[in-house]
Amino acid sequence: MASVAVLGASGYAGAIAAMLVHRHPFFELRHVTARSEAGARLDDVHPRTRVPLELESWDPDVQGDVDAALVCWPHRVSAPAVAALRARGVRVVDLSADFRLRDRGIYADWYGEHGAPELFGQGVYGLPELYREAIRPADIVANPGCYPTAALLALAPLARAGLLGDVVIDAKSGVSGAGREPTSATHFISADENMVPYKVERHRHTPEIEQELAAQGAPLTVTFTPHLVPLAQGELVSAYVTPAREHDEDELAALYDEAYAREPWVELRVGPPGVLDVRDTNYCRLSVHSDGRTGRILVFAAIDNLWKGAASQAVQNLNLMFGRDESEGLR
Amino acid sequence: MASVAVLGASGYAGAIAAMLVHRHPFFELRHVTARSEAGARLDDVHPRTRVPLELESWDPDVQGDVDAALVCWPHRVSAPAVAALRARGVRVVDLSADFRLRDRGIYADWYGEHGAPELFGQGVYGLPELYREAIRPADIVANPGCYPTAALLALAPLARAGLLGDVVIDAKSGVSGAGREPTSATHFISADENMVPYKVERHRHTPEIEQELAAQGAPLTVTFTPHLVPLAQGELVSAYVTPAREHDEDELAALYDEAYAREPWVELRVGPPGVLDVRDTNYCRLSVHSDGRTGRILVFAAIDNLWKGAASQAVQNLNLMFGRDESEGLR
Amino acid sequence: MASVAVLGASGYAGAIAAMLVHRHPFFELRHVTARSEAGARLDDVHPRTRVPLELESWDPDVQGDVDAALVCWPHRVSAPAVAALRARGVRVVDLSADFRLRDRGIYADWYGEHGAPELFGQGVYGLPELYREAIRPADIVANPGCYPTAALLALAPLARAGLLGDVVIDAKSGVSGAGREPTSATHFISADENMVPYKVERHRHTPEIEQELAAQGAPLTVTFTPHLVPLAQGELVSAYVTPAREHDEDELAALYDEAYAREPWVELRVGPPGVLDVRDTNYCRLSVHSDGRTGRILVFAAIDNLWKGAASQAVQNLNLMFGRDESEGLR
Amino acid sequence: MASVAVLGASGYAGAIAAMLVHRHPFFELRHVTARSEAGARLDDVHPRTRVPLELESWDPDVQGDVDAALVCWPHRVSAPAVAALRARGVRVVDLSADFRLRDRGIYADWYGEHGAPELFGQGVYGLPELYREAIRPADIVANPGCYPTAALLALAPLARAGLLGDVVIDAKSGVSGAGREPTSATHFISADENMVPYKVERHRHTPEIEQELAAQGAPLTVTFTPHLVPLAQGELVSAYVTPAREHDEDELAALYDEAYAREPWVELRVGPPGVLDVRDTNYCRLSVHSDGRTGRILVFAAIDNLWKGAASQAVQNLNLMFGRDESEGLR
Repeated sequence: MASVAVLGASGYAGAIAAMLVHRHPFFELRHVTARSEAGARLDDVHPRTRVPLELESWDPDVQGDVDAALVCWPHRVSAPAVAALRARGVRVVDLSADFRLRDRGIYADWYGEHGAPELFGQGVYGLPELYREAIRPADIVANPGCYPTAALLALAPLARAGLLGDVVIDAKSGVSGAGREPTSATHFISADENMVPYKVERHRHTPEIEQELAAQGAPLTVTFTPHLVPLAQGELVSAYVTPAREHDEDELAALYDEAYAREPWVELRVGPPGVLDVRDTNYCRLSVHSDGRTGRILVFAAIDNLWKGAASQAVQNLNLMFGRDESEGLR
Repeated sequence: MASVAVLGASGYAGAIAAMLVHRHPFFELRHVTARSEAGARLDDVHPRTRVPLELESWDPDVQGDVDAALVCWPHRVSAPAVAALRARGVRVVDLSADFRLRDRGIYADWYGEHGAPELFGQGVYGLPELYREAIRPADIVANPGCYPTAALLALAPLARAGLLGDVVIDAKSGVSGAGREPTSATHFISADENMVPYKVERHRHTPEIEQELAAQGAPLTVTFTPHLVPLAQGELVSAYVTPAREHDEDELAALYDEAYAREPWVELRVGPPGVLDVRDTNYCRLSVHSDGRTGRILVFAAIDNLWKGAASQAVQNLNLMFGRDESEGLR
Repeated sequence: MASVAVLGASGYAGAIAAMLVHRHPFFELRHVTARSEAGARLDDVHPRTRVPLELESWDPDVQGDVDAALVCWPHRVSAPAVAALRARGVRVVDLSADFRLRDRGIYADWYGEHGAPELFGQGVYGLPELYREAIRPADIVANPGCYPTAALLALAPLARAGLLGDVVIDAKSGVSGAGREPTSATHFISADENMVPYKVERHRHTPEIEQELAAQGAPLTVTFTPHLVPLAQGELVSAYVTPAREHDEDELAALYDEAYAREPWVELRVGPPGVLDVRDTNYCRLSVHSDGRTGRILVFAAIDNLWKGAASQAVQNLNLMFGRDESEGLR
Repeated sequence: MASVAVLGASGYAGAIAAMLVHRHPFFELRHVTARSEAGARLDDVHPRTRVPLELESWDPDVQGDVDAALVCWPHRVSAPAVAALRARGVRVVDLSADFRLRDRGIYADWYGEHGAPELFGQGVYGLPELYREAIRPADIVANPGCYPTAALLALAPLARAGLLGDVVIDAKSGVSGAGREPTSATHFISADENMVPYKVERHRHTPEIEQELAAQGAPLTVTFTPHLVPLAQGELVSAYVTPAREHDEDELAALYDEAYAREPWVELRVGPPGVLDVRDTNYCRLSVHSDGRTGRILVFAAIDNLWKGAASQAVQNLNLMFGRDESEGLR
């Protein structure tokens, strides 16, 4: 048994993370925190979790008594909490963007000043399908953004094979991706029966996708545009690739088969995936298509933005860090 | 007054077309037809139309006694009906694909054998913003497909200006686009909380978009992928353009302003459009963005697939054909 | 022409009211007000209205220069505005509860202190189907609540005929009924795929329903429970009546036929109504059923809570007050 | 280990039943059947199940080799299959209505001729909270209907205490309750943004509710009306009770507390339950309210119609029949 704290458990991803840890055979959920809802029970705030723990205020001397923590806070406020936890020897999976980027300048450009500069760049990028071995011994794992998770699983095989010439990523997400804060954009009347592009040209997941594609061998500038669609959980990445070189369908099929046939949480399909097929799961469903008319490669990847895009992937990482089966507690 | 018949009034687009004609100050709705629901009243089948007419079986000797007809039938079965109407001197707006394409080979490739080969290619493409003057005297107007309507309004200014180098069109449509037939894909449980790409590489609106972009000066092969999203009516086209030449933001703004500032049914906006903003209207909302990072031009266009994408655009065409104000009966 | 101001035009009902007045052949929309969004244009805040007027701050000396005003403000803050408008001779349709009740004690119990006690009780209850003649000359018309509108249209014929022994009203409303304020209850993630009873035992429309049923001849205590359902606009009242006396189906049918056959905005149907059938309209759809097994009478009434339940009914009242055809501008 | 067959696994409830058995630590899912989709894999037809078994055609000599079967077929066709399974010694949980009723005349009135008259009435009514001890040794368990499950859990404590004088049950269900057959009623465009009463006066769950309330001590004729609401899974029963005798709030609270405080799958709450709180679970959430104004007792019960209303309750019953912990495999 290893003890775990979940910071920010009143958010959507944090609540699911707490639920998964609570049900987990190996981990013991010891603390859950929330800022404004401290004192309430998590199963009152989020009934579906059925986690009967009281939400606590954040105090490193209280929650720092654990083996591991999942930090589900926004960027910039997350880093100091991670630092405080690390100072107490706690191993951390951080769900914010604070430890994902490795270039201080890029972080500064897209996010501003970092909250724990001495730890900057020390996170291992927590996409198990790409960095499994590095994650195991890591003390700080930077859980990927939801869009980068789907985009990188879709494109990494092409990047590694030198096939990724140029790419347009059109992404669609359910409303939970906009967070739990009631705003005019998350009001039912705004989102229902609507769909709309948002953060055109400037979504913060862009540099993260570019950094990791470069790490896989394809240093390029990507076009990435997210859209809000009227559903609760689910994310679809449609990637339109201009290939960098000649290839045929067999090579393409072999590349993806090699990458994912043995991956427990990636499902390679012939037809395009729907987000409902992966709802409330850690799965990513993928399909790859070679368009003879245009010469483009099309890749579609569907995940649940709160699960594989956040909470369940964090637990997948936690499993790796503590030597457990990667899938424990996730089925 | 001019008398009008609506063929196929029990479908989603046909019902709205009938409603718009019925309410129209100049046109008189004389006949509505339906195959399997003949004998029922339209306002029982589609209460929201409030059209108290009985649905008739198609008989050219009955419905042929009108000045104009809107034919809301599927491709291939539409052409013979159009021929029969033309033989009786009826002016026709055809909502199928049968008179949109001008290359017999391309029609055959994507649709099969044409149902009235002697009339092939005689339709004027009914996108008023591009072909207003040709529509006025036309006897057959080929009402554009829903995706081409949005895609062409989004891209025509770039095509005409020699800016359209390459384009990826990612389109999203509400479920009414899949038609009124109950299928496993249109079942509430399949569509609700889901989104999924469909007809990847082979949607029939592709050659129509390519034909009309070529007509505007940009002969290219487009990548076009539609997605089904969980809402009733609404269509969003996200177009990712690789420019064919240097340009600046001022030129871009001037191009769209020149194209659309005086158009009654195109709304140019600074921020990206949502489909709810055009629901149940003949409007197309557009925004254009020049992405400095990637050099791409992004254009977003939102329409109601059943209105500007079908029924209300058909009435807009009818207005032009009969010398009426283009917007009559549409506000 | 008569000039009109709409106060509170940034709310859902206010925006539709403004749109209907703006499109109306007889009325001229001169002012629209909003508290926090003053300075913005209404068609930017609510694009679907297409009303290109600037939202103003409330100032009786500015907006008081009109012939009529629709006041779309919450109870208690509405009354003083109505008083200020009346002092300037403006005829008012008030959409709040402030002028609906006629018993000061009941108002105090359910709403608290009244904001213009000198005018208390001077409103004519604005349900045209019941009070048409009294509305015509009225200077203050109290537009009914959405639930009372549907409930009273459903039950008035029974009340008048001495048939209403006891009644359970189970009501369901779309999320727009909860207002435009972003709250945790109106967040898409809370409302989507959910339904939940609310304000059990204490919804403020209860005394309004009881007052008006008593006025129709049935003084009784009603059980009324509203539920929130995941749709934008639409309200369904299911009324379960224990008859006060013997009756047969013919009498029942005759009662409703007599009440509504000539009403332009009530649609009597054999089968139960769906809210989609009346979406974006001023219609109320009704069905009445006599259950032989239980002896109960069941009445179902569907309206659009923002239209017949608020904005379009306000315009219907305005038409009556200004001697226009009751339906002008509403089709 | 005990081996299990699920008949009718391509339906919504059957697919979930198969998934739950497949994941269950004690049961082994050996067969899944489907009529029209035999030959396909269940995880292709219903990806969310992740059950990699091939759907078989029904053949008692093939699927009869198991210890237990869950029969997820419609009424009337279910009974002969149950008979064939019983002839082979298989213990059965039947999800149809065929073994729920104990009066042949009532069955004939509501359902027609029974498909296995020699077994009529031999089922134990499978609501564990009422019949736990009788279910354990049973060979045929008649899994309750979804509406009766919620209605009986809501009302049984009142029935037993002699408090149930009269009751109106207004029920609301998500669209999955209408089955997987694509029909005009289950088309997304019909159900989305709509709600409508259905089977007014004649829903077949009525006699089942009456039978079981009588068994609990309250023989009465109930008014029961279901409504279709636009969500996938979830059912809410709103019960309006006229008490048969004097009582106070303390007695009421004590009754429900006594009935459910130790029940693992009933959650008693102070505020009214939402269906989202029990989505994808075996829980029933309940609240009881004593309305001082009207003297009525209000009870609200929320379940997932496919889980506690069908599939997971069937597994709960199976657990009891095989001496397992009632909750095994359900959390």
